[in-house]
Amino acid sequence: MSQIPERLRERLRRAASDAGARGLGAVVVAPSPDLVYLTGYDPMPFERPTLLILRPDRDPVLLVPELERPLAAASAAGGLTELHGWIDGVDAYAEVARLLPAHGAAAVNDRVWGVHVLGLQAAAPELDWSSAAPILGALRARKDADELDALRRAGAAADATFADIVGLPFAGRTEREVAADLARLLVEHGHRTADFTIVAGGPNAASPHHEPGERSISGGDVVVLDFGGELDGYHSDTTRTVVVGEPPEGFGTVYGFVHAAQEAAVDEVRPGLPIQEVDRVARAVITEGGFGDRFIHRTGHGIGLEVHEPPYAVEGDDTVLEAGMTFSVEPGIYLPGRFGVRIEDIVAVTDDGVERLNRSTRELQTVG
Amino acid sequence: MSQIPERLRERLRRAASDAGARGLGAVVVAPSPDLVYLTGYDPMPFERPTLLILRPDRDPVLLVPELERPLAAASAAGGLTELHGWIDGVDAYAEVARLLPAHGAAAVNDRVWGVHVLGLQAAAPELDWSSAAPILGALRARKDADELDALRRAGAAADATFADIVGLPFAGRTEREVAADLARLLVEHGHRTADFTIVAGGPNAASPHHEPGERSISGGDVVVLDFGGELDGYHSDTTRTVVVGEPPEGFGTVYGFVHAAQEAAVDEVRPGLPIQEVDRVARAVITEGGFGDRFIHRTGHGIGLEVHEPPYAVEGDDTVLEAGMTFSVEPGIYLPGRFGVRIEDIVAVTDDGVERLNRSTRELQTVG
Repeated sequence: MSQIPERLRERLRRAASDAGARGLGAVVVAPSPDLVYLTGYDPMPFERPTLLILRPDRDPVLLVPELERPLAAASAAGGLTELHGWIDGVDAYAEVARLLPAHGAAAVNDRVWGVHVLGLQAAAPELDWSSAAPILGALRARKDADELDALRRAGAAADATFADIVGLPFAGRTEREVAADLARLLVEHGHRTADFTIVAGGPNAASPHHEPGERSISGGDVVVLDFGGELDGYHSDTTRTVVVGEPPEGFGTVYGFVHAAQEAAVDEVRPGLPIQEVDRVARAVITEGGFGDRFIHRTGHGIGLEVHEPPYAVEGDDTVLEAGMTFSVEPGIYLPGRFGVRIEDIVAVTDDGVERLNRSTRELQTVG
Repeated sequence: MSQIPERLRERLRRAASDAGARGLGAVVVAPSPDLVYLTGYDPMPFERPTLLILRPDRDPVLLVPELERPLAAASAAGGLTELHGWIDGVDAYAEVARLLPAHGAAAVNDRVWGVHVLGLQAAAPELDWSSAAPILGALRARKDADELDALRRAGAAADATFADIVGLPFAGRTEREVAADLARLLVEHGHRTADFTIVAGGPNAASPHHEPGERSISGGDVVVLDFGGELDGYHSDTTRTVVVGEPPEGFGTVYGFVHAAQEAAVDEVRPGLPIQEVDRVARAVITEGGFGDRFIHRTGHGIGLEVHEPPYAVEGDDTVLEAGMTFSVEPGIYLPGRFGVRIEDIVAVTDDGVERLNRSTRELQTVG
């Protein structure tokens, strides 16, 4: 583990230097996956500000509530940053402002609580504040070998979960019961936590983020299973659509278009491609099939320390793919009142193409 | 349950009207306990904005990602607000800006992600943005009878947890093992979730937010236990300091000052008192005892849908206490390298004084 602080030190150095290159006088980072990525420190986000201040050519400073100073000092952040404690009752934003340039531009991480952004803006009114995603999101998007390995293991654990779940009974059980099985299997196969387990049967399958409920699954139901968890800090996220016995009319056609769209989009992935092209390829297949207006979401999202992180496979995101980037490819078609279909895998960009981190069969599975 | 939407409708009406009274043209609320309080809707906060827009004398509008429209429609928010879906790839902030006044003032809830604040500011550059806490925090601070009942039950469940834990062995077990028992007991006694279980033994007791670790507890250790969970949406949060066998030198004196400070501060609570007076009373006792510089945090925090919420018992918070307000009273003294002491109860302001929601003994308990 002794190498990890060095890896973190390099990330801190890189973020500060990238900030300088973009004309930013400072980047401020609150508790979040961004802070974990940079320092390994992972406190609860709270109303008391904990804020990392990165500046080009200066050492990083971590402002912490005085009562959490021992916690921060005991973490990797204790060796990587200079700790500044602030005591309840003082204006912590004014303390931060003393470390910021008086004029120019600064950035904050995306997940910082709004109250802290407003506090920083009031304390440093001459600074022009923007999102730190162009720096931190871009750094985090390119995974190193250890990160890719964790994502591969998370993907394999999700695949093992799917292999098991299709052998269990669906008919006569509620969505919530099947979801509980998914959660159990995710952990049994190596995840530290099960983070989400969408089980959407029958008409509920037309709701992409359906919350599993008391509806009993029965013969003829299409069931969308979208599940994932965290393993060594990194996330899995995969979706398969199964059918209980005989599928409803029209289902085969819809499944075929989603399947074809997913294959075409994954095949397109390679270094040098703007990620929005992945969305265009998937959308073209589904639009060609006549369901363009029923594909009501983007094609995918980056994944790593967060389930959703930059870049996004969506029109307007022209991030150029590089080796080491990892994201979901998950086209879907949703027919309200009838059914829905989504197929999702995580992929990694390689030096010359793409590697699937999920290998579960994408051929239609019939369950009992 | 049929009364709950009416209660929510009244909260929405009140928030919009309070906003108008404060000269705000709009209040924008992202997924958070604030959104739950107003609409019952509790989606995961994500990079895709879900934003409730409240305006004086206008009906509430909930902007949701199109793929989550069925989820929102199925919640209480579906009947309470007009749903506006936005599709991936469009500028959701521009959609919100169309519903906002062009000039004047607007507010956002404290927990909204910073990236959404920056997006709103860019889309509505002529608006002056501030925290919605003066409206939403103030509304939420005054609990109604049902909320007080939930908080009482959560407090009683935490008390039952403490009664059980002091009967279990401490010596020879790790902090983590005792923390696992606390978590189990919180749930056994009725909490839906155990949210935090600080077990800080020996010198670790001097770290107020210590993360329980592998340190083995032994005779002579002071152990701070700070634990709580969620029950029917509302939270418990209590702290007791126990000793394993014979306490270290000087401990009795420190425990006595913390105990006296907590009693004095709780006794002071009554309607009409600015909450900072509660902090002053506790601090005076500890300062008088010579430990003022070792009481390194505020005396307390509001509690309800969140473990920490306004108002705060801290110098500078002049919120005037009203019947129905609930908050922690938790003075502490921390001696680095030696030990720490904290005693915490939740109290409710009554029509003429105070009600303790925790009734565990505050006399020193010796454990085995």
